Amino acid sequence: MIQQAEVVVYDRLVSADILALANDQAEKIYVGKQLDYHCVPQDQINQLLVDKALEGKRVVRLKGGDSFIFGRGGEELETLAEYGVDFEVVPGITAAAGATAYAGIPLTHRDHAQAVQFITGHVQKDGKEMDWQAVAQSNATLVFYMGLKQSGYIADKLLTHGLSAEMPCAIIENGTRPEQRVFRCGLSELRMSPSKQKVQL
Amino acid sequence: MIQQAEVVVYDRLVSADILALANDQAEKIYVGKQLDYHCVPQDQINQLLVDKALEGKRVVRLKGGDSFIFGRGGEELETLAEYGVDFEVVPGITAAAGATAYAGIPLTHRDHAQAVQFITGHVQKDGKEMDWQAVAQSNATLVFYMGLKQSGYIADKLLTHGLSAEMPCAIIENGTRPEQRVFRCGLSELRMSPSKQKVQL
Repeated sequence: MIQQAEVVVYDRLVSADILALANDQAEKIYVGKQLDYHCVPQDQINQLLVDKALEGKRVVRLKGGDSFIFGRGGEELETLAEYGVDFEVVPGITAAAGATAYAGIPLTHRDHAQAVQFITGHVQKDGKEMDWQAVAQSNATLVFYMGLKQSGYIADKLLTHGLSAEMPCAIIENGTRPEQRVFRCGLSELRMSPSKQKVQL
Repeated sequence: MIQQAEVVVYDRLVSADILALANDQAEKIYVGKQLDYHCVPQDQINQLLVDKALEGKRVVRLKGGDSFIFGRGGEELETLAEYGVDFEVVPGITAAAGATAYAGIPLTHRDHAQAVQFITGHVQKDGKEMDWQAVAQSNATLVFYMGLKQSGYIADKLLTHGLSAEMPCAIIENGTRPEQRVFRCGLSELRMSPSKQKVQL
């Protein structure tokens, strides 16, 4: 599918190896996202996909992880549907699954967690506060995407709502990449700024 | 990796196409699981992996979906670790992600769901009841694995704990396979036995 694309629209998390699969002649458009800096606003990405498709081009939208789990794939797809553009979604391995597999941490386990919850680390987005009570009581493995900056806040909320200070936690950086790093600690230690922690992240 | 395996231990959900990737000479052992019938008990599977590995064989354990999300991969891995068997985990696309991608249903969406929760459909396992209040309040897309038989019970619990009767639901059967079928309804309609529903599942 990548090889047949005439246009490839890709994000920061797409590795060079994957991008190299594309045809040399294909137009490659970077719309990468960094943590605090969106190179191209989402509505412009949506429109770009439509414009290229309406030019008759075969477009591949390349994203890291799974585009339907905090990837805003739903918004891009809605725009395509509005304009009557046919599309196909190829699911990916979402960061939570990939990073924990490489770290040897099962997301569910008969003896420990009967569910798993993926939560955006931007926990105070738009001023709405999460229902921390519900999250803390869920008996689920909790995975916070992009949660590093908010890790102290997340830990405080979970401790306040009854989770144990010793609850095992892991911070995973560069998940599934050769440079992946895993920092394990108890929940109370997540409060520390990562820069103060023994293992620099 | 599959091609290099001397032993392939596989489940029911592994398709013939995938299995065909294995070397003709490889020993292929079926330990398949059906919904209500475990062909081989989990502890025997764990031991089988260890035994074959200790014979010096290169073993691939093939599972559908993601072995760390309701796949009991964690238990297999623990046994391997106990016996000092080296292993590598290759993450897969879990059923929730694969099936919804093929159905065009984003698991998270900026406007609708800020989180997603994967829950086992065996909701009363071992007599322990889930915290339905927490689940219903989570503002997460809820995905129940193997939830068809319990769908009426799940719907009742969610309705009792405050979710709307019109909350959009989908039942997905044979996710990601050519014969995938999707039945969409409101939460209150999940109460009906699937056999009574317009679309037979």
